[in-house]
Amino acid sequence: MTRTLHLNAFLMNTGHHEASWRLPESDPHAHVDLAHYVRLARIAERGTFDSLFLADGPQLWSNLAQRPAGALEPLTLLTALATATEHIGLIATASTSYNSPYNLARRFASLDIVSGGRAGWNIVTTAGAEAARNFGLEAEPAHAERYARAAEFLEVALKLWDSWEDDAVVADKAAGVWGDDSKIHPPRHRGTYFSVAGALNVPRIPQGYPLLVQAGSSDDGRAFAARYAEAVFTAQQTLADAQAFYRDLKARTLRAGRDPEHVKVLPGIVPVLGSTEAEARAAERLLEDHIVYDHGVARLESLLQLPAGTLELDGPLPADLPPESAVEGAKSRYTLVVELARRERLTVRQLIGRLGGGRGHLTFAGTPEQVAGQIGTWFTEGAADGFNIMPAVLPSGLEAFVEHVVPILRRRGLFRTEYGARRTLRERYGLPRPANQYLTPASVRSA
Amino acid sequence: MTRTLHLNAFLMNTGHHEASWRLPESDPHAHVDLAHYVRLARIAERGTFDSLFLADGPQLWSNLAQRPAGALEPLTLLTALATATEHIGLIATASTSYNSPYNLARRFASLDIVSGGRAGWNIVTTAGAEAARNFGLEAEPAHAERYARAAEFLEVALKLWDSWEDDAVVADKAAGVWGDDSKIHPPRHRGTYFSVAGALNVPRIPQGYPLLVQAGSSDDGRAFAARYAEAVFTAQQTLADAQAFYRDLKARTLRAGRDPEHVKVLPGIVPVLGSTEAEARAAERLLEDHIVYDHGVARLESLLQLPAGTLELDGPLPADLPPESAVEGAKSRYTLVVELARRERLTVRQLIGRLGGGRGHLTFAGTPEQVAGQIGTWFTEGAADGFNIMPAVLPSGLEAFVEHVVPILRRRGLFRTEYGARRTLRERYGLPRPANQYLTPASVRSA
Repeated sequence: MTRTLHLNAFLMNTGHHEASWRLPESDPHAHVDLAHYVRLARIAERGTFDSLFLADGPQLWSNLAQRPAGALEPLTLLTALATATEHIGLIATASTSYNSPYNLARRFASLDIVSGGRAGWNIVTTAGAEAARNFGLEAEPAHAERYARAAEFLEVALKLWDSWEDDAVVADKAAGVWGDDSKIHPPRHRGTYFSVAGALNVPRIPQGYPLLVQAGSSDDGRAFAARYAEAVFTAQQTLADAQAFYRDLKARTLRAGRDPEHVKVLPGIVPVLGSTEAEARAAERLLEDHIVYDHGVARLESLLQLPAGTLELDGPLPADLPPESAVEGAKSRYTLVVELARRERLTVRQLIGRLGGGRGHLTFAGTPEQVAGQIGTWFTEGAADGFNIMPAVLPSGLEAFVEHVVPILRRRGLFRTEYGARRTLRERYGLPRPANQYLTPASVRSA
Repeated sequence: MTRTLHLNAFLMNTGHHEASWRLPESDPHAHVDLAHYVRLARIAERGTFDSLFLADGPQLWSNLAQRPAGALEPLTLLTALATATEHIGLIATASTSYNSPYNLARRFASLDIVSGGRAGWNIVTTAGAEAARNFGLEAEPAHAERYARAAEFLEVALKLWDSWEDDAVVADKAAGVWGDDSKIHPPRHRGTYFSVAGALNVPRIPQGYPLLVQAGSSDDGRAFAARYAEAVFTAQQTLADAQAFYRDLKARTLRAGRDPEHVKVLPGIVPVLGSTEAEARAAERLLEDHIVYDHGVARLESLLQLPAGTLELDGPLPADLPPESAVEGAKSRYTLVVELARRERLTVRQLIGRLGGGRGHLTFAGTPEQVAGQIGTWFTEGAADGFNIMPAVLPSGLEAFVEHVVPILRRRGLFRTEYGARRTLRERYGLPRPANQYLTPASVRSA
């Protein structure tokens, strides 16, 4: 079978450009409007996307003046979208630092059942003190500790999803026997972060496990991805960087004892489309003109962990920024932003303009042919198994991508022309249904 | 306005009778079938019910052989049902012992938005060691401690739901100002059980708060209900008991500084319908004939906290059972069961037969006229503001109630004939939208 692209639609509010909400076409109340998201999901499904995705964090991003804040809780929203769609995968972000495994495993299991096997979990450890302070902590746990907890969380969740064998329900009405208790496997887990004794109160789900997605690109993040992730979202600015990340992650996956084909790498791309290059650039400029730069400076200072008032809008970044290892927040994003500014010798103003579009993801303004060409190049040159499509403006940017870029990818044989039969999300991504760990010898289990 | 009944449909699997799954008409996989629940919700909506309700606990009820176990997580299922219905309220059970206020407040807020103001929360503290052991505890917290945590949980949740003023979103595109940060009120809560600093990341919801429901009838439970609940589910076996409970709860609500009209009391009733009395009794016997009594004995021993093998099927309950105060589990249920057995001098077998129908709720087998008559009597004689309808078999029992009992209640002017305009769940129950605590003087707040 020819290798084909996977496309994920990253849905966020009125779009990934921070100024998108200010455009005349945008609804500033879209952040909590189910109808808006139903419309987006249906556009993505018309474009035969593999999946759609919602980012999340359990805190209110300050400050409200700058741009839309708050969102429907992702698993809730995706459940509603499950009933409005038929084929597309539904990937929700949820934190291993601020949830308990029993509740979260059950919620993903429930979404998987309700959607007929279309649930995916973007596993995050949640950086930032704001979130920590909403859950009884004074400060965020250290980076390494967050990842240690995440790994144990995953182990428990996998046990819970395997705690019913597929055929545990006997349903023998005549004998009065509903289930076979010998096919229930309580985790009886006692670990560093969690103790979970009992079996899940949901049967084994269509996919076995939801599709496991990960997006941290730090060293801890990559190690975690190599061990557990089946799809990885990543921010890469150049083909060479993307190739290096791709090679590294596939090699790590192999070393972790897994098939490198079983982790799909999807860099983010913010397409800004125009029927000519000049039109696309004009669309990009229009968005940049709507950026409120004071806000951008404040956010950049926060990301770089600098005191307020340090940065000058028309100057460069300070030369003496600390190394990534000294940063406790979103490590790989920190490095990406600093390297972007240095590589391209950007002023703070220019950097904010570049980040405004996709927060570190690759923004690409061009014609549909150019965007399809870039996608094709990265895909064929070992930089990507697919893409995380992050339209600058929603719904119009997604609509334009589906109307104009997808047909080119299809003509070139790079992307499916139809969904065909109903499939689970993991089948769509070419991944096997995991065997139940309680039925599989340990030697096979780690293969 | 004439006082009219409120009706809630308590949906559970193939029905509230423990043997319902064994009937030829029942689907033993209904427990995780969205289509089954969509069908039930639409029947209830056809019957212009105020709301539907899902019970829950974060553990797998042992043991599987006896009867269907496991269920879709209630907020997930209700979100899916929200998209399949238009008017009916959606009440989910969720535990204050095994959730964090930030996450749970957000999920109810999200359901309220997605459903257009139809979310309700049945607040439970979750008895039992099984649940505790799924969340890192060795044993269940003491009854009083569970309620102390529940009260603080509520205080935090109310702060979170009030943390956005209704008009916090300004949406001034020209000025580039999306929200007004002065209208955001971070809880900054530091208490015994919880510390929650930041505002919720969802705007204030259509209902202000979801409808707050409670079902514990112990002394702690009633005190909690008097302080917070807007609807109370309760199990009462006789008119006199139900009247005493009703009077007590309304008096406590008044003493707590609230309007007794603002808490609606809904006893549970398990109607078993037949077109004649004899037919109804035959339907009831058919269900009893499907009970597996060994299972019932084991469950009864567990509820009464007796060693296995203590009870004899054709003997009475032991005379020397401990008082309710010595019991750590579901206190009011314990007393109800013991009193039922003693009042009616039931053998263990007979008691199991009675409990099999509704686990302590009033089972009433009769014609539609008789069931409607019983409902009318309790409603007019100060025992109920409405009923929690718990069909023995689902969907057929709900269908029969809607087809045959609801029309009688309507003809007698006791129940609505149509929904009319779209309303929120709390409007449906005749309750006001709560004022935002950050905008209201304290003296008004407690009134």
